Amino acid sequence: MDLNSDLGESYGAWRMGDDAAMLDLVTSANVACGFHAGDPAGILDTLRAAAARGVAIGAHVAYPDLAGFGRRNMDPTSRELAADVIYQIGALQGLAAAAGTRVSYVKPHGALYNTIAHDARQAEDVIAALLALDPDLILMGLAGSPLLARARARGLRVVAEAFADRAYTPEGALVSRREPGAVLHDPAQVADRMLDLVRTGEITAIDGSRVRLRADSICVHGDSPGAVALARAVRQRLEAAGVALAPFAGARVEDGQAKGARTPDTRAT
Amino acid sequence: MDLNSDLGESYGAWRMGDDAAMLDLVTSANVACGFHAGDPAGILDTLRAAAARGVAIGAHVAYPDLAGFGRRNMDPTSRELAADVIYQIGALQGLAAAAGTRVSYVKPHGALYNTIAHDARQAEDVIAALLALDPDLILMGLAGSPLLARARARGLRVVAEAFADRAYTPEGALVSRREPGAVLHDPAQVADRMLDLVRTGEITAIDGSRVRLRADSICVHGDSPGAVALARAVRQRLEAAGVALAPFAGARVEDGQAKGARTPDTRAT
Amino acid sequence: MDLNSDLGESYGAWRMGDDAAMLDLVTSANVACGFHAGDPAGILDTLRAAAARGVAIGAHVAYPDLAGFGRRNMDPTSRELAADVIYQIGALQGLAAAAGTRVSYVKPHGALYNTIAHDARQAEDVIAALLALDPDLILMGLAGSPLLARARARGLRVVAEAFADRAYTPEGALVSRREPGAVLHDPAQVADRMLDLVRTGEITAIDGSRVRLRADSICVHGDSPGAVALARAVRQRLEAAGVALAPFAGARVEDGQAKGARTPDTRAT
Amino acid sequence: MDLNSDLGESYGAWRMGDDAAMLDLVTSANVACGFHAGDPAGILDTLRAAAARGVAIGAHVAYPDLAGFGRRNMDPTSRELAADVIYQIGALQGLAAAAGTRVSYVKPHGALYNTIAHDARQAEDVIAALLALDPDLILMGLAGSPLLARARARGLRVVAEAFADRAYTPEGALVSRREPGAVLHDPAQVADRMLDLVRTGEITAIDGSRVRLRADSICVHGDSPGAVALARAVRQRLEAAGVALAPFAGARVEDGQAKGARTPDTRAT
Repeated sequence: MDLNSDLGESYGAWRMGDDAAMLDLVTSANVACGFHAGDPAGILDTLRAAAARGVAIGAHVAYPDLAGFGRRNMDPTSRELAADVIYQIGALQGLAAAAGTRVSYVKPHGALYNTIAHDARQAEDVIAALLALDPDLILMGLAGSPLLARARARGLRVVAEAFADRAYTPEGALVSRREPGAVLHDPAQVADRMLDLVRTGEITAIDGSRVRLRADSICVHGDSPGAVALARAVRQRLEAAGVALAPFAGARVEDGQAKGARTPDTRAT
Repeated sequence: MDLNSDLGESYGAWRMGDDAAMLDLVTSANVACGFHAGDPAGILDTLRAAAARGVAIGAHVAYPDLAGFGRRNMDPTSRELAADVIYQIGALQGLAAAAGTRVSYVKPHGALYNTIAHDARQAEDVIAALLALDPDLILMGLAGSPLLARARARGLRVVAEAFADRAYTPEGALVSRREPGAVLHDPAQVADRMLDLVRTGEITAIDGSRVRLRADSICVHGDSPGAVALARAVRQRLEAAGVALAPFAGARVEDGQAKGARTPDTRAT
Repeated sequence: MDLNSDLGESYGAWRMGDDAAMLDLVTSANVACGFHAGDPAGILDTLRAAAARGVAIGAHVAYPDLAGFGRRNMDPTSRELAADVIYQIGALQGLAAAAGTRVSYVKPHGALYNTIAHDARQAEDVIAALLALDPDLILMGLAGSPLLARARARGLRVVAEAFADRAYTPEGALVSRREPGAVLHDPAQVADRMLDLVRTGEITAIDGSRVRLRADSICVHGDSPGAVALARAVRQRLEAAGVALAPFAGARVEDGQAKGARTPDTRAT
Repeated sequence: MDLNSDLGESYGAWRMGDDAAMLDLVTSANVACGFHAGDPAGILDTLRAAAARGVAIGAHVAYPDLAGFGRRNMDPTSRELAADVIYQIGALQGLAAAAGTRVSYVKPHGALYNTIAHDARQAEDVIAALLALDPDLILMGLAGSPLLARARARGLRVVAEAFADRAYTPEGALVSRREPGAVLHDPAQVADRMLDLVRTGEITAIDGSRVRLRADSICVHGDSPGAVALARAVRQRLEAAGVALAPFAGARVEDGQAKGARTPDTRAT
């Protein structure tokens, strides 16, 4: 199983999260690309720290919205969105090369993530961007979302992720943050749920029912209070149960065959 | 001989220059990377147009200063400047890949160009950025400037450029724009001077004396009124005199050996 | 009658429109505030030119989106939107004071203009911003839109505008730009329509029917080719027919009573 | 005596400092204006909190450099710098009006602060900006710097500030941060020094000698660890010794005569 987290989200004089601590716990890092967060020098520091630990790198691409942290919906044209995504991945690829690593996958951020999970037009723009830049890039998206099938149909490899600290509906969707109980805070409970998910391929929904959820990666947040403790709890529970933790994609430039060594199972997402 | 020009400098709704017309005339395009000009979608358009014409691509990296068009001095730390340069080159590499071409060289823009021509610290930062990202990147700089020797000493290939529409001092430096006669406007005169430079390796300085100037490329500006006419005059004069015009670096991804096919003469710059 | 146009939309090295020429023709200038266009120094130039001609000043507030020129939808929170609007008006008030004039009214720009014409939540945010900053600010909006009644109900004075170069539906709405015939280009035709509107309070819709349209101001665009010619045609036709052209709001700081001297008729918008 | 601190320096999702805690301690708040820090909604929150406590407001104007937090030197033209300063003050005036307070003074930030302390050209640009916008604005600057005399000569009221946590040279200048002992961290020591300064008009320099320092305000930093504790120590020591703490400028819009009620002594700075 893979553990991923959003990192590199400091900006200039402003700090966010504890990248060094999180990089000791996760196997894949979604690194900000400068549009919602991340200045080049700070991104480079995070990439070097990730490279030193063998953590795989994903481009955490976003709408151009620093003030809104990429969390506000926008409606770029297809021409704009595809080029914005390519620009961000390219910038991160450059910094990753300088840090001795490479970008293995792409995980859209915030409002873009939520929009393309369901919006066909913007989803196709992001997919087109990856295909135009490098068809070997893997797209990470919401487990169960139409995006993943759409991207596979276009020839991309995809990775489905589950959110460690979020409640799910009986249909396998995320409970809206506006609902009570949407976000889980107890590390032990979260760790139990994730071990359950890994073992059974199912999760207990908010109404107590069981729902199937195909997930290739588990997302643990990096920017909230308690983030490190929660990530540590998940990692320790999985390891104690004998679950091997490894990136779904190779982190090293040199390691050609590591890329895809553990091909994500993309059948049922 | 190579002809280069600064292109891709539109931004969103704002147009600058006539990229299509200039791309019919030059052999190398210094393409903005978003820090002083250039939005990703507009950059991608310019790269596609360049790729279609076999024009080589340089990353026109700059200080982060849209409002000042990269023409204002800044004093980033070494950590910031190196990462900013890598970020911009990487972003352009990504867009270039999507356009079916690649970034062959790097030409700093505006205030950064002028600063690193003489400032050792910032020059070393830019050189370090290229070495960290890809040591095969060629650095384009001001003919006669200390930057070029410095970069060669670090192992980079360099290209020296002369400015078609600028007057030179008897020492081979540019006459300051604040001096009368610093900028030349007559296309015929400019074309004559450039043919003279190509044939003799010398140029007539503002005081009438002759000065040696080693130049691998001639820069024609793309954003001023009359820019296209001036570029056309230079190109036609050189071609009529039998001077072959070709990029100093290969433009095509497929064409591995074109890169450096015409190795710039870097002895005397 | 008042003629208004969007001005101050250059940015740094990029020019847009011919502000000096337009300021000789219009009576009110919607001046960019830096979020979709306009750098402070360029805005100040436009304000000085407007002050010299007695042209009234409106704050052309927008979403924070330079790359998209404020034409892309966004969904800021109420807290963000209200503060963004106040910030922009305040900035323009400061520059206007330095230019010897003042901000009389506010006209939202682009996507924000279109959104608040109908969206209640964002409309209330903009209205709240004006009330919090200065309840004497006048809000300019689309003739016939729900925004105007909403703002009047909150105690704001409003001004309804018609678009000189746009076709109207039989219901008095703008024909979408995606429809054929939505934008009119013939200066003589446009001038005829506007004189008709001023005289009759009606306009001929795209299907030939007549529709009532209460307009206190006519918007002529400043950034398209032919903008100056079209504005001149409208102004000359109205003046030749004896229609007095004057701003609906006073332009001068000194002229306390000019503000509202010609109170816009806000009954039927 | 006045206590001032730099506040409102969060930006979007990024937090900096503890504005609420600092506003309980200081009498004047230098509030970021969006160019080096501060988004409009966050600024408005800080202004409301300051208004509720009767804390006076200064515009903390800066170079346009979010990524560098306004700490990097830039060389804007006079036209650009004056307009940038007016824009920022105006924006803050707008937000202050919405918060029920007003901007009493202007304190340049970071690199701009340091530059204009000695650079005549940029100092004159900032002074011209204040005079053009509102000649009643007070300029806060470094005690002992040429800026203050220059601004007084142009007719501005000025306020000289001392830095609570910084060592001074025998000449009354700040010891460079690169020198050992430049920054003081012990709250008790800092509080003792400030009480000494208020009582004697002198401070003990880094070499043990005594140096005169005319200060109308004491700056306590708001963004470093321990900032609140240090500010509290200074305030408590001064109050315990019977020193009255009050803003040098009135905080309230209604309170016309409070402005300048305690006219800063500008003789010897």
